[in-house]
Amino acid sequence: MSAAIDLANDNVRSGAGGPFGAVVVLNGEIIARAGNRVTVDNDPTAHAEVIAIREACKKLGTFQLEDCEIYCSCEPCPMCLGAIYWARPARVFFAADRHDAANAEFDDSFIYEELNLDNENRSIPMKQFMRNEALIVFDHWKDSNLKIPY
Amino acid sequence: MSAAIDLANDNVRSGAGGPFGAVVVLNGEIIARAGNRVTVDNDPTAHAEVIAIREACKKLGTFQLEDCEIYCSCEPCPMCLGAIYWARPARVFFAADRHDAANAEFDDSFIYEELNLDNENRSIPMKQFMRNEALIVFDHWKDSNLKIPY
Repeated sequence: MSAAIDLANDNVRSGAGGPFGAVVVLNGEIIARAGNRVTVDNDPTAHAEVIAIREACKKLGTFQLEDCEIYCSCEPCPMCLGAIYWARPARVFFAADRHDAANAEFDDSFIYEELNLDNENRSIPMKQFMRNEALIVFDHWKDSNLKIPY
Repeated sequence: MSAAIDLANDNVRSGAGGPFGAVVVLNGEIIARAGNRVTVDNDPTAHAEVIAIREACKKLGTFQLEDCEIYCSCEPCPMCLGAIYWARPARVFFAADRHDAANAEFDDSFIYEELNLDNENRSIPMKQFMRNEALIVFDHWKDSNLKIPY
């Protein structure tokens, strides 16, 4: 966790991005580390956790981090928590939490609240249409011999 | 939306990844398009929406998609919805929904449920520690002259 917090601190000092860091650990060894790079990379998805997960997967040649632990300097936002669920690590640790992030003017807590609203009540309007056309794709997927489930 | 569904279909046909597609539209024109690439890229974050958002931001040289619309062949999962909130587009449209994805054996609906559980009740255990050490980073952030809010 100290390494994750150090990455967050380095980020603030260098101006490379937001005050967040994350590391992925396998068998007691750090296999990937990242600070937030949203503003420097012009990439709203470049949160520390997302970058660290991507790098760990690249290193291990897999899209699953089953035996890994992820240490985050702050509680993962919904995007990062979603990424964590898709990567399926063994455990996650975090230091600061979503309310601390909100105090530093980050949207983490706000986004958690928005996710539980109906589509029409969200600050970004969301609308469903063409469901029937899209369902055909899932039928093709179910019948596909090429599919790799994840 | 047809373009997003076509991308999903192309993905199933080619075996490049899951049955999902997304496009980003600005002023009535598609500026980024992507299919899911999780398995082919060994990247659990390579959902269609995430890739399309990253490409649109790269093209526009910004980390915000304020005037854009995002069309998704399926309701965004929590990771992608989080990415959408960080990118802040004007509107989002989707075709199939999280329950349709669950019927095709994807975890979208499951992850939405997990997000609302307490840390200790989640299928991936999560634990907080070293909060005080991490709070110091937020203090540095607040005092920083280099920071770019996002």
